[in-house]
Amino acid sequence: MENRQILIDSLPEGKLEESNYRLTAAPLPEPGPGEILCRTLAVTIGAGTRAGLQGSASYAGAPKTGIVMNGNGVARVITSNSDELEEGNLVVCPSGWQDYSVHKASQVMQVGDDIDIGHHLGALGTNGLTAYFGLLKLGEPQPGQTVLVSAAAGSVGHLVGQMAKIKGCRAVGVTSSPEKCQLLQARLGYDAAVSYRSEDFRTDLKEACPDGVDIYFDNTGGDILGAALFRMNEHSRIVCCGVVSQYDTSNPAGGPRGIPGLLINKRIQMAGFLVFDYIDQYDAARSEIRAWIQSGELNPLNDEYEGLESAPAAFVDLLAGGNVGTRIVRVAD
Amino acid sequence: MENRQILIDSLPEGKLEESNYRLTAAPLPEPGPGEILCRTLAVTIGAGTRAGLQGSASYAGAPKTGIVMNGNGVARVITSNSDELEEGNLVVCPSGWQDYSVHKASQVMQVGDDIDIGHHLGALGTNGLTAYFGLLKLGEPQPGQTVLVSAAAGSVGHLVGQMAKIKGCRAVGVTSSPEKCQLLQARLGYDAAVSYRSEDFRTDLKEACPDGVDIYFDNTGGDILGAALFRMNEHSRIVCCGVVSQYDTSNPAGGPRGIPGLLINKRIQMAGFLVFDYIDQYDAARSEIRAWIQSGELNPLNDEYEGLESAPAAFVDLLAGGNVGTRIVRVAD
Repeated sequence: MENRQILIDSLPEGKLEESNYRLTAAPLPEPGPGEILCRTLAVTIGAGTRAGLQGSASYAGAPKTGIVMNGNGVARVITSNSDELEEGNLVVCPSGWQDYSVHKASQVMQVGDDIDIGHHLGALGTNGLTAYFGLLKLGEPQPGQTVLVSAAAGSVGHLVGQMAKIKGCRAVGVTSSPEKCQLLQARLGYDAAVSYRSEDFRTDLKEACPDGVDIYFDNTGGDILGAALFRMNEHSRIVCCGVVSQYDTSNPAGGPRGIPGLLINKRIQMAGFLVFDYIDQYDAARSEIRAWIQSGELNPLNDEYEGLESAPAAFVDLLAGGNVGTRIVRVAD
Repeated sequence: MENRQILIDSLPEGKLEESNYRLTAAPLPEPGPGEILCRTLAVTIGAGTRAGLQGSASYAGAPKTGIVMNGNGVARVITSNSDELEEGNLVVCPSGWQDYSVHKASQVMQVGDDIDIGHHLGALGTNGLTAYFGLLKLGEPQPGQTVLVSAAAGSVGHLVGQMAKIKGCRAVGVTSSPEKCQLLQARLGYDAAVSYRSEDFRTDLKEACPDGVDIYFDNTGGDILGAALFRMNEHSRIVCCGVVSQYDTSNPAGGPRGIPGLLINKRIQMAGFLVFDYIDQYDAARSEIRAWIQSGELNPLNDEYEGLESAPAAFVDLLAGGNVGTRIVRVAD
């Protein structure tokens, strides 16, 4: 039995391409004492992973070639040398882009079979927790406030908008096309949506936020952040979650004008966060998110590709703004 | 009797010059009912005033020519048509750059003759309150933390460094010359100081902050903010107080690289403030600052020019980094 793997073949110069990856096969790994062998069922792809190919600027560490591409997956335990897990258990683990992986039992999280496995990677996974803690802890939304979200149809963004609605806010999304704007309003509950690729983006944004912006959940940085700054209300907040506009390049742009001048004049608070800092509150957050899903208040979308070999294409498309919801690559049933 | 006035003669293109101002004389103004006529004794000049000449980007409003240059002063009441004040009272008022001014009694603040009048414009005035609320409310300094201050010898900065020391912090100053670096350490209690004009500025900054930076009190924005970002510790704070690097130009630069990327990776909170938001806490703050002055813990410096006619030169020199402490122009005894 072989283990298909997708390796980082070369580091991207400029935009990421499928040719930066290479499909190969290795012998099935052997679990050691206390370890488990897992069969990957699905992996998720997030834009933030692109930063890991960019050098030392990321918390993901320095990039390397010749290694299996990293990523979280849902997997089934095939062999267990641990008392904590047994064959057949479902786990979330740092599987990477491969059919099989070995982990210490303490490094995976057992999850239930009672819900679409995609949700373990989406609304109940890092994306959902990121939306939850970023919006609720840093944004502190109050009913009636306007919450602006960039990459609003994305894996994190499409949950932020819905959570803002749950909290009684007006949700405004920034996305990449008129078609996605329609989808944001029709399927994701956004009150208004604008395309940053429109020539009239700044005017459209102003019209979509007649009362200004109280919370800007920024997944992009760059020009969208620059435009949003001018719409911020006094004493408003910018939640810095991601910099997708700057990931897919080897030459990140300068920061937006208006920093720090506008922060002062409008007394804006701007704060970055990493979801890992809230790990001791994950269980409570997952309970609340699961309740929202079950009540129908939250409608997480999974945007799926089929087959391990499609992962590079799924990633390139994601970086071009192709996804609606959490991008998931189904690897096995 | 005439009222000498300094008018804004033209708006600066590029750097401010003395020739942007014009000395003129007007008849002595007449106080109406409820108003007071004041003799200006001293005015203070702050870098932030430069933004008022720059257009709509400032909270100071749009610039105009042909009007008396604005600014706060200490003045003696000459004539009072108000029950609240009498002849001889000392007040802080928006005197502008002129010998005499008329105000409603409710728009001035009576102050005591028991302390150097310069302190009413410095440590007990807007500068001192700005240092106090910015550092204590937004920075929340804890003993042992490193506080970095830009424009560290300036009207606000020289008080921030001393207040950081009062709170048990290590204070590091950024200033404009080796001479000022020495002065920061010798007279203002900074533990270390670096010149941003040094070719080795970024290296010097790193060496001056061996434990990184927990609070950066930013009076400058621009390249100094850009360099400071790379020294910030995880979960650190940037207090955005001023943008002096961008005031004296008609073409403000873009924002620093690393925003928002570094804010995320290091979970930095960056917040702007205006001191006016804390007006209901001014009295308590002034009591504490006055106690620090009286105990000798705080040593506010006034950097004085003589004569109303010297105000334009005092302002141009301030914008070039010439001042140490609060710049004050003495107008009359």
